[in-house]
Amino acid sequence: MLEPIAHVGLDPGTGGYVRDAWSEADMELREWFAGEAARRGLDLREDRNGNLWAWWGDPSPGRPGVVTGSHLDSVRQGGAYDGPLGVVSAFAALDLLRKRGVSPSKPLGVACFTDEEGARFGVPCMGSRLLTGALEADRALALTDDDGDTLADVMTRAGRKAREIGRDAGTLAMIGTFVELHVEQGRGLVDQGRPVGVASAIRPHGRWRFDFRGRADHAGTTRLADRDDPMLPFARMVLAARENAERRGVVATVGKVRVSPGNANAIPGHVSAWLDVRGPGAADVRALVADLAGAAEVREESWTPVVDFDPALRDRLARVAGGDTPAPILPTGAGHDAGILATAGVPSAMLFVRNPTGVSHSPDEHAEQADCEAGVVALADVLEALSETKSRQG
Amino acid sequence: MLEPIAHVGLDPGTGGYVRDAWSEADMELREWFAGEAARRGLDLREDRNGNLWAWWGDPSPGRPGVVTGSHLDSVRQGGAYDGPLGVVSAFAALDLLRKRGVSPSKPLGVACFTDEEGARFGVPCMGSRLLTGALEADRALALTDDDGDTLADVMTRAGRKAREIGRDAGTLAMIGTFVELHVEQGRGLVDQGRPVGVASAIRPHGRWRFDFRGRADHAGTTRLADRDDPMLPFARMVLAARENAERRGVVATVGKVRVSPGNANAIPGHVSAWLDVRGPGAADVRALVADLAGAAEVREESWTPVVDFDPALRDRLARVAGGDTPAPILPTGAGHDAGILATAGVPSAMLFVRNPTGVSHSPDEHAEQADCEAGVVALADVLEALSETKSRQG
Repeated sequence: MLEPIAHVGLDPGTGGYVRDAWSEADMELREWFAGEAARRGLDLREDRNGNLWAWWGDPSPGRPGVVTGSHLDSVRQGGAYDGPLGVVSAFAALDLLRKRGVSPSKPLGVACFTDEEGARFGVPCMGSRLLTGALEADRALALTDDDGDTLADVMTRAGRKAREIGRDAGTLAMIGTFVELHVEQGRGLVDQGRPVGVASAIRPHGRWRFDFRGRADHAGTTRLADRDDPMLPFARMVLAARENAERRGVVATVGKVRVSPGNANAIPGHVSAWLDVRGPGAADVRALVADLAGAAEVREESWTPVVDFDPALRDRLARVAGGDTPAPILPTGAGHDAGILATAGVPSAMLFVRNPTGVSHSPDEHAEQADCEAGVVALADVLEALSETKSRQG
Repeated sequence: MLEPIAHVGLDPGTGGYVRDAWSEADMELREWFAGEAARRGLDLREDRNGNLWAWWGDPSPGRPGVVTGSHLDSVRQGGAYDGPLGVVSAFAALDLLRKRGVSPSKPLGVACFTDEEGARFGVPCMGSRLLTGALEADRALALTDDDGDTLADVMTRAGRKAREIGRDAGTLAMIGTFVELHVEQGRGLVDQGRPVGVASAIRPHGRWRFDFRGRADHAGTTRLADRDDPMLPFARMVLAARENAERRGVVATVGKVRVSPGNANAIPGHVSAWLDVRGPGAADVRALVADLAGAAEVREESWTPVVDFDPALRDRLARVAGGDTPAPILPTGAGHDAGILATAGVPSAMLFVRNPTGVSHSPDEHAEQADCEAGVVALADVLEALSETKSRQG
């Protein structure tokens, strides 16, 4: 199902994808999205924050649509499914509805959100956070990538009006309901032997930057006692995070580290580390960060409170998507644009497609073809139900 | 004294220098060296390995010269003195000899060695190691920088014949004696209240690359128990290295780390860390590395056995350079081209210039102007003595 974009941003050495927001790969994926919309006669719109919308029907604030979709960017060296499966399935579900002769009474939209992973600028769900106002435009514009380019620079170079980003009530008002299909990032469905599930909640999660500062010096001539080596408190933080997470029943991860100046023959002057913490309860997540803050300057890069998806919508999806037996309802520790929209008051829900290993954010991420197809059918069923289909042409 | 090159490769944000081998900054420094040679009527040569030689007189294998000098490249975000002080002082000492009316009976040479720090390709003293054959040409050519470019690519782009690098007996035969002046990278001279000292020995030292491999996965959805996170054994290695170094009386440093893929929201799949270890005894240095090797793949990137500089030459320098009281004789934990030449059988020695803080490999590295001038006088005295000056024109 993902064949048409399987080559975009692929690192042939690792099998992983690198699809940073506004990169060449991202621009190619946007072109592909536009082509898919055109092929189906959908009305393509790009909002001020770079999110893409392909509409079947013409939504208005008085007649908002049913929207499905996900994102096309990737974590670095990520898998093929996280994001793209939701976009490709959205187009496929729409095709299936048309094949069924469905004539929806509400506009149907396919969405592609910008920079969901935050791989480039550090803040995840950038497109939906800007759209809903959860992220301030000025703060976003000043974020820098690894080359020191700001989001403002990067969007301008991509031909976008960077100064116009920010909360977009007009676009928000077009979304009556949002349903995001996503590959599961865990083994909940494997354990229950089901191809498709429904999200109950997204656990509270946040990302913090720890800066440890010391004094750069010569690796050979500086006595141990004279050193102020920031690598040591950093290493202690990594181990304490794990121990603390085990104790509190949360998960904590250090996946990104920057050592300056990075000479093999010098004590570093500065170590920056990004700590990702998630758990069932916000208090435990925050307490872990507070416990570790001692030796570093700590800055919150993002915080997403718990998201409880609309229970009525969730249960309806579980019935519609499940066939004879309602689909399993699962919580998740992963952040999604659906969570950002739900927090902003948009009735939102998620469908998960089984992942045989549970592995994600890795080239090993996978879903079986049959399960992906089951996801499309479930999504089509859900869209048909939510759009209050008036008629089926047999 | 370093004014003429103070702007080259300077990072104005930090005050540190970035002068990678064969970079634009390095090419500018080579131009400067050529200009200094031309200004003095010296005969400029570049050997097959990119090392520069400026000769006063015409050396031959039967009549080798007295050579002084150091290097112009830098660690990243390094100081102004490490390397350049030795080159600038070499030219200044030559000027002083001429001002004294000295007519040396042996050729005098000023040397600038390529890539002493190994900042770009990971192997320190590349120019002198290639010259002496301590580093195999094929291994050197295949080394890669952070952009994945090999030394072969980089030298070819710089207009050099990369295929011709390697042991160069012809050039080696021109070096009768080598004296390297260097800023001290410690506080030995401060403690003794002396501006100039002489090296006794270079401690054995090496650099090892540790590769910790795990499994990249999602930071939010992967249970702690299911993780194979290479950040944890890496952090344990950092702390164990320090503890082990304290116990053995050596120094161990992790100054360079690479985390792949480096997503803040993913467990990393791979952490590479470079461990630098030095100490009075090779056995303790090697034992520390063996103790830590458990959880990682370990590869030796460089190894430099103990260098005991020629005692007669050392004592002669201490007498000549010290004035009334012989100059202090100090060991060092830093590697130098003089050590590589000494190991290859070239009678070699080093002069150190006082460093008020001892800090090196950092923008804070410093030497007072008066001490630098005392270094030039000491170096001139040494060169005069070693070149068996026949006459002084009064």
